[in-house]
Amino acid sequence: MKSKIRKSTGQIAQYLGSDLLGDAEKIITGVAPFEHSSPHDITLAGEAHFLKKMDKTLAGAVIVPESFKGVEDLVAQGSSVFPVKNPRAAWAMVMQLFYPPSHPQWGMSNSANVGKNFVCGKDPDIGPFAVICDNVTIGDRVVIYPHVYIGEGVVLGDDVTIYANVTIANSTKIGSRVIIQPGAVIGSDGFGFAPDGEKWKKIPQLGIVQIDDDVEIGASNTIDRATFGITRISSGVKTDNQVHIAHNVTVGENSILVAQVGISGSVTIGKHVILAGQAGVAEHLTIGDGAIIGPASGVAKDVPDKAVYSGAPAQPHRHWLRVQNVVGTLPELKKRILKLESLVDGMTDSDKSQKD
Amino acid sequence: MKSKIRKSTGQIAQYLGSDLLGDAEKIITGVAPFEHSSPHDITLAGEAHFLKKMDKTLAGAVIVPESFKGVEDLVAQGSSVFPVKNPRAAWAMVMQLFYPPSHPQWGMSNSANVGKNFVCGKDPDIGPFAVICDNVTIGDRVVIYPHVYIGEGVVLGDDVTIYANVTIANSTKIGSRVIIQPGAVIGSDGFGFAPDGEKWKKIPQLGIVQIDDDVEIGASNTIDRATFGITRISSGVKTDNQVHIAHNVTVGENSILVAQVGISGSVTIGKHVILAGQAGVAEHLTIGDGAIIGPASGVAKDVPDKAVYSGAPAQPHRHWLRVQNVVGTLPELKKRILKLESLVDGMTDSDKSQKD
Amino acid sequence: MKSKIRKSTGQIAQYLGSDLLGDAEKIITGVAPFEHSSPHDITLAGEAHFLKKMDKTLAGAVIVPESFKGVEDLVAQGSSVFPVKNPRAAWAMVMQLFYPPSHPQWGMSNSANVGKNFVCGKDPDIGPFAVICDNVTIGDRVVIYPHVYIGEGVVLGDDVTIYANVTIANSTKIGSRVIIQPGAVIGSDGFGFAPDGEKWKKIPQLGIVQIDDDVEIGASNTIDRATFGITRISSGVKTDNQVHIAHNVTVGENSILVAQVGISGSVTIGKHVILAGQAGVAEHLTIGDGAIIGPASGVAKDVPDKAVYSGAPAQPHRHWLRVQNVVGTLPELKKRILKLESLVDGMTDSDKSQKD
Repeated sequence: MKSKIRKSTGQIAQYLGSDLLGDAEKIITGVAPFEHSSPHDITLAGEAHFLKKMDKTLAGAVIVPESFKGVEDLVAQGSSVFPVKNPRAAWAMVMQLFYPPSHPQWGMSNSANVGKNFVCGKDPDIGPFAVICDNVTIGDRVVIYPHVYIGEGVVLGDDVTIYANVTIANSTKIGSRVIIQPGAVIGSDGFGFAPDGEKWKKIPQLGIVQIDDDVEIGASNTIDRATFGITRISSGVKTDNQVHIAHNVTVGENSILVAQVGISGSVTIGKHVILAGQAGVAEHLTIGDGAIIGPASGVAKDVPDKAVYSGAPAQPHRHWLRVQNVVGTLPELKKRILKLESLVDGMTDSDKSQKD
Repeated sequence: MKSKIRKSTGQIAQYLGSDLLGDAEKIITGVAPFEHSSPHDITLAGEAHFLKKMDKTLAGAVIVPESFKGVEDLVAQGSSVFPVKNPRAAWAMVMQLFYPPSHPQWGMSNSANVGKNFVCGKDPDIGPFAVICDNVTIGDRVVIYPHVYIGEGVVLGDDVTIYANVTIANSTKIGSRVIIQPGAVIGSDGFGFAPDGEKWKKIPQLGIVQIDDDVEIGASNTIDRATFGITRISSGVKTDNQVHIAHNVTVGENSILVAQVGISGSVTIGKHVILAGQAGVAEHLTIGDGAIIGPASGVAKDVPDKAVYSGAPAQPHRHWLRVQNVVGTLPELKKRILKLESLVDGMTDSDKSQKD
Repeated sequence: MKSKIRKSTGQIAQYLGSDLLGDAEKIITGVAPFEHSSPHDITLAGEAHFLKKMDKTLAGAVIVPESFKGVEDLVAQGSSVFPVKNPRAAWAMVMQLFYPPSHPQWGMSNSANVGKNFVCGKDPDIGPFAVICDNVTIGDRVVIYPHVYIGEGVVLGDDVTIYANVTIANSTKIGSRVIIQPGAVIGSDGFGFAPDGEKWKKIPQLGIVQIDDDVEIGASNTIDRATFGITRISSGVKTDNQVHIAHNVTVGENSILVAQVGISGSVTIGKHVILAGQAGVAEHLTIGDGAIIGPASGVAKDVPDKAVYSGAPAQPHRHWLRVQNVVGTLPELKKRILKLESLVDGMTDSDKSQKD
């Protein structure tokens, strides 16, 4: 895919901090998938199966794992080759190099509505019909798309991008380099009601949401403010679309929440946890650092550090797999039990008849 | 329900291309459910059970299946009767006839914000505070509700309706007669990150979303753009509310995705597939043409054409049913195993004692 | 957490209608959690485990259950004590007392877009870029945040709050003291299509949504209008975030729908029902008054009054628990069956050999 940016293979090697086999003067103008590359593209051959089809790419430059044997053929074929430790990270880096984020250049749109005491960093782009309430502070190079609502007293760091139709309720604190995809809601009321006979009394939700640096929030997420204190999304967390995070939850650094995950109130999620799509976590639980929770799992008790859990209710993945293997054979197992009963019944009869 | 439109029963028969038994001159002014109709309404008696209660409707006109016996009673009762092959399709047609879509007549609101190089078809209705970025092209009779964001370079066909608070990110391509319900997000970034030690590096999402003709997208859907290439929603697809479709997914023609379905990245869904509510599909899988996936199923491997799958992990529906039948009896089965053990234990003892 | 409001402990006792042990003249200026209170705060010690750590709070005033023994120590410690029947309800009441709802004072923003025949009660606050179509009626003290869309003919009662980016489609009826959290969609089209060969014909959705008094709707809910008639959310219902309610559903008074619940078309939910997070209900079913449905359950048949159901498909909770207990032991049970087979096989052989 053609970019406006041109880099020599030598410049790319320097940017990646990697070795370079082959021509260092070749001009690269874009990034493309392995089988859809042209001689001016750089591509990725990240896994072993690419080794068998190296002749299937026309890419002028190829990122490969350091461990690949036989890249000489690629070089002979005319490609410049970058052997790296972490091919996917290098791939992300070259994509970022050739396709830096871009957005409409609104400057400060005169159709935006900005309240009192607005403290605004350098080079903002604030789109038409954005609403910024009183006492808001934003850092440098912040991009706020149209129809975004920023409540009173909100603070945003530097290089934050808030896409269209996002709601950020009052008093939310957001760090730097945070991206919020369209339609997300940050700081809605926690779901707190006290039973009072047949009715429910609303418990005012007085806390806030705090989102730390380098977080990305997916489209149409809902993240509730705390009852007291903070609902906290720690630095480096990435959430996919339609994730729900209730009041007083803490999500630890660099954790990943895949689409449609739901986290109940007062849950603590450790660092570098992965929750696969549609998983749910019951309230007040703790999920340990580095744990992995399988898709659509229902976490109903604490999960230890580094554990891999699956199923509903969630259990250690290996046990769940063993159970699932048997579950699939239950109709047959039942037949075998019936047969056993019939055999044993026969024996008891014959036993009886013997005794008779 | 009263409409402003008046049609004679003869005109309706012509419109439906159906036979007509009874009065062809009767004036019909609305559509209503069977037991809540008045003599100026047309109603539907689509299933056999209606035959027993034909005297329960006051409807002046009734759509029935061709196969119904005994509609003479209905005619004798004074109703005009339309025997048709597909009663529900005929019902949809008369509802469309009496209640054509309507919307506020904004024309081109002077409170909308429209960018450069806007190519606009005939008779647009574009509401207050809609934002249309640069280089957007829209067809004839397009309706864009308030607070819609249309990113740079988006193309919409003819007769498209985009309801309020929808976000359509840059470069999205949308065909004709497409309806997008409120709050949907089209073209958010795919969820792509490369692990880099403890942190995650964002993989820029360079592709687009393409939505073909006659698609309807439900409220608060999220459809991510492709990493490279296209996330494609083919013609005739209908999605219910809160459906999530990840990057690089293809949904085939006329498929149905019921509420809260989640489709992971790079999944290929065939034509005329039905995914029931809350089902999920893991990444890179293929679901064959005409397949049906049950509610809350978790599809974890490819599904063949026309297969009916249920459960999590999803499996052929008949097998799942047989398994579920046994699962429900497990406490009793366990008792039977205990009894067998006790019986066999007794025998072994008696066997031993015999041998002793 | 400090409030602008000051009340004496005597005033609080009067407000709660409760007894007061200790100083009635103490000034309270805020509400805080038990272990984070200062002498000017009131706190809650609602459960027995607090009795063991009464010395852990600095709170000047404490709400306790009437049944607590030994609150004299608390009083001796200098706290004013409120023994009440329902501590959580009293807690909600004092939080409401000290932190009454607040919102930006927009009055009628001149950046809002208001249609013809607007009937507006006293003291509205209508934010910038809100859109109110023709023939809308709202009661007194209504708050409408920015980017809210209110369709033609909508009626709102008194003291309604509609947060940012909410869509309320035409003809919706909303009672008094209703709160709608950000991003919700009320009145989108029901998911109704008639199969017509390979294609689907849209069935126009002619009904409305009616939301009764004292309802709170969570962030990013989607509630579809009825095909004919009413989708009804009865008084006192509270829904959490990302709840989906399809066309023609009725939710009875004071029921609770937790996050990511999905309700299919034409379902009837009784009064004071609780649906836990991610539960789903198949179409046309009835859930009886007072029923409780566990998290991620899939309701596939009617649920009686007061029943507690769990699992997918949902079943009586006790039975589900018994089944789950056995499911977890299936690998071991299978081994026991194998052992039985081997034992019985041995016996049959020995039997045979005896007979031989």
